Amino acid sequence: MGALEKLTALGLVLPEPPAPAGAYTRAVRTGSLVFVAGQLPMAGGAMAHTGPVGDGSRTTEEGYAAARLCALNALGVLAAEGHDLNGVRIVRMTGYVHSAPGFAAQAQVVNGASELMAAVLGDAGIHARVAIGVNSLPLNATVELEVIAEVS
Amino acid sequence: MGALEKLTALGLVLPEPPAPAGAYTRAVRTGSLVFVAGQLPMAGGAMAHTGPVGDGSRTTEEGYAAARLCALNALGVLAAEGHDLNGVRIVRMTGYVHSAPGFAAQAQVVNGASELMAAVLGDAGIHARVAIGVNSLPLNATVELEVIAEVS
Amino acid sequence: MGALEKLTALGLVLPEPPAPAGAYTRAVRTGSLVFVAGQLPMAGGAMAHTGPVGDGSRTTEEGYAAARLCALNALGVLAAEGHDLNGVRIVRMTGYVHSAPGFAAQAQVVNGASELMAAVLGDAGIHARVAIGVNSLPLNATVELEVIAEVS
Repeated sequence: MGALEKLTALGLVLPEPPAPAGAYTRAVRTGSLVFVAGQLPMAGGAMAHTGPVGDGSRTTEEGYAAARLCALNALGVLAAEGHDLNGVRIVRMTGYVHSAPGFAAQAQVVNGASELMAAVLGDAGIHARVAIGVNSLPLNATVELEVIAEVS
Repeated sequence: MGALEKLTALGLVLPEPPAPAGAYTRAVRTGSLVFVAGQLPMAGGAMAHTGPVGDGSRTTEEGYAAARLCALNALGVLAAEGHDLNGVRIVRMTGYVHSAPGFAAQAQVVNGASELMAAVLGDAGIHARVAIGVNSLPLNATVELEVIAEVS
Repeated sequence: MGALEKLTALGLVLPEPPAPAGAYTRAVRTGSLVFVAGQLPMAGGAMAHTGPVGDGSRTTEEGYAAARLCALNALGVLAAEGHDLNGVRIVRMTGYVHSAPGFAAQAQVVNGASELMAAVLGDAGIHARVAIGVNSLPLNATVELEVIAEVS
């Protein structure tokens, strides 16, 4: 079963990212590496998850869902850039988790991104990972995800 | 018009970075990639922009100026390392914005770096970007910028 | 004197990292680059340094020790992945320092990682560096370190 079939089996639809605009773009390829711009938990053009995890308003589970959505959006960018997802390998992901003071379960939040990549790409989705807590993110997002991928 | 002429037209002078010292250095090349060390908004050897954006002391516009200065310093490092800026392509930039709680306009701040790269390098300045908020930075800087470039 | 002898001379033992488990792994190689997953200041399976620097509980010196331990763990991962440390070059390190508000000496903290790499690997340990302050880290760690290395 290919990556797109796996997405369908998970009940997910590959999102169409906005067209690149302005002084930066959604992904840059250099050699066999693709650096994907930081992805936010947006769906249908709107931010789906805002605010910090750990202060009583956003749970770890909601953070997990936000991270998963960021990963889905990263796959959407890779596909929109013309890469066959069956030939994509995830090299490294950094998950920045908007965190209330004292929150320490960033790993569980970023699992939402990691587990989606593994579910969709199989062994090629197994990556080196960095999970970080931050006090703020653009548009008050709950998670931001950076993906470095290898393409064939 | 070359990159250096564009800098002059913008009224900017390429800064001379301090010589590398200690256990790390200002840039490392591996293959065609150059990883530039984190750049702070320093000018003439002094920190030009300190403190967080969003708490009433530093405006988004001041953050933009800080990010632009970080980008200028990154170009200074690339030139000092012997790279002709006309052969440099910016692959990815991560802008860390020193942010007061609740500040959410990191993208507008990091635009200061992105737009300078596009103004000086043209299409080769169009990069993948990550904009992150953080609660603190070295020397109380307002912005720190990491640049990964491709050289020919 | 090789890297392992230098470690011994420093009184250090290369740690054995836990086996990779789950949806991500401890390092991924792509071409000649190895992206090591974010390393925490763990020793013997337990977190050795927790809490922020700069609030009166953790000193800069304790942060330095935490960063040094992260770097040792990164070397442990590289060795466990089968890389001869004498053929490893450190390209870039990002040190995320769990920081109390107002703490600004992240560079001195991350020196703990930088100086260990230089002590063990010599010139091949001299890297581009990014030092960042953050309000929280996984498991309340004091430092997290990301390493990108080049292997021959």
